[in-house]
Amino acid sequence: MKFFKHILNESRSEADGIFFQKIQKIVKVKLSSLPIYKQAFTHRSLKVKNEEGRIISYERLEFLGDSILGAVISTYMFENAPQGNEGYLTKMRSKIVSRKNLDLLGQRLNLTDLILSGIPNEKLGKNINGNLFEALIGAIYVDKGFKACETFIYRTVIQEDVDLAQLEKRVMSYKSLMIEWCQKNKFSFEFVTEDDPGRDEEKHFSVKLIINNEISGKARETSKKRAEEKASQRAYFTFQNYIKP
Amino acid sequence: MKFFKHILNESRSEADGIFFQKIQKIVKVKLSSLPIYKQAFTHRSLKVKNEEGRIISYERLEFLGDSILGAVISTYMFENAPQGNEGYLTKMRSKIVSRKNLDLLGQRLNLTDLILSGIPNEKLGKNINGNLFEALIGAIYVDKGFKACETFIYRTVIQEDVDLAQLEKRVMSYKSLMIEWCQKNKFSFEFVTEDDPGRDEEKHFSVKLIINNEISGKARETSKKRAEEKASQRAYFTFQNYIKP
Repeated sequence: MKFFKHILNESRSEADGIFFQKIQKIVKVKLSSLPIYKQAFTHRSLKVKNEEGRIISYERLEFLGDSILGAVISTYMFENAPQGNEGYLTKMRSKIVSRKNLDLLGQRLNLTDLILSGIPNEKLGKNINGNLFEALIGAIYVDKGFKACETFIYRTVIQEDVDLAQLEKRVMSYKSLMIEWCQKNKFSFEFVTEDDPGRDEEKHFSVKLIINNEISGKARETSKKRAEEKASQRAYFTFQNYIKP
Repeated sequence: MKFFKHILNESRSEADGIFFQKIQKIVKVKLSSLPIYKQAFTHRSLKVKNEEGRIISYERLEFLGDSILGAVISTYMFENAPQGNEGYLTKMRSKIVSRKNLDLLGQRLNLTDLILSGIPNEKLGKNINGNLFEALIGAIYVDKGFKACETFIYRTVIQEDVDLAQLEKRVMSYKSLMIEWCQKNKFSFEFVTEDDPGRDEEKHFSVKLIINNEISGKARETSKKRAEEKASQRAYFTFQNYIKP
């Protein structure tokens, strides 16, 4: 990979050696190429450019890794839920590869310790862990192929984290859950939203979820979406003995 | 695969032999297992059940194939557009694996000739070709693995169909294109929708796309979405010399 020549030249030897060892420890497979892993941890703020003058970052590898992760998790679901229809398989896959889950997985591997960035880690946004995790999968795929990726994903995602019975119960959206529950039971429901600035400077919204003409949950948040989700979650806890996620 | 024992028993020998030969001709790789390909062409209307009493159909394989197709096309884009950022890669991938494209690919391979269904082909819905195409990819993956799938997808999708320069120009949504164009150029725009039953029994909508206070395209369709798309397309043709998809 020519793009990396200058990073490699700058920081050769010791720093590279440490980086390589750390990645090797995470991936647990003999790696063939250093530059692709460096790319997987390069944030655009570092402003490293390739020969055509375009900024190099982990984002292209994140695109690739996301897709490979999807294929591996689909295979896992297909094999391990022989009775599940495609709706079930899709739903469970999206729980496994949710942003929240990927962020957790990246955090667990301490991926931000390896980042090559021009700005402080705390300014990298809250999804940086998940993004680096996907980029790392992309790098393993480029370096070692599909099988090696599968092994890595089984070890880090599936063995650590996937319990289908538990996942079935995990609620991704309380709003969808409550709407489905109301529709199934023919209950009337309505989300009533109001601007509710209060004494705060930031915009705030109040949402009430009204089921069968009774307020079943309410919440105040800085976005309508978050307020709806929280009001729905509160309604869910009120009725949880009657609702199956 | 135990589920297929009874189909296999019923129809063994000649019919199976012909089916196997036809699939072999499409896939162009020596196949190992017949049942998985039968599943890839079984429509739920045939009401074949597995031992637990659940209906067997191509739908689970379609779920799997969709994901593998995504991974292979992502790899292709990653390798063949080294200058494209992740937004470009995502956009081009979705053009390649669009419903319309997959339906065309399935049609070209005459996949509906192979379907095992309880209802006439013309009642199978317009996406049946694309669905069978994805299910076939799923079956190849289960039978022969990732590499064989990649080879099949390269031959049927990429070599036949993918010209990145052409694809860049393919418009997926004229509505999005026109909105982006207006925003970029700071033009005001508005979609004005009216119920417009006319003399038709079915509900109809008229949509006008007004750009900088001038009607730039109008259309009448049975859904608001289709009318907006058509009005946008007409506006696009008016301004096409100024718009780059």
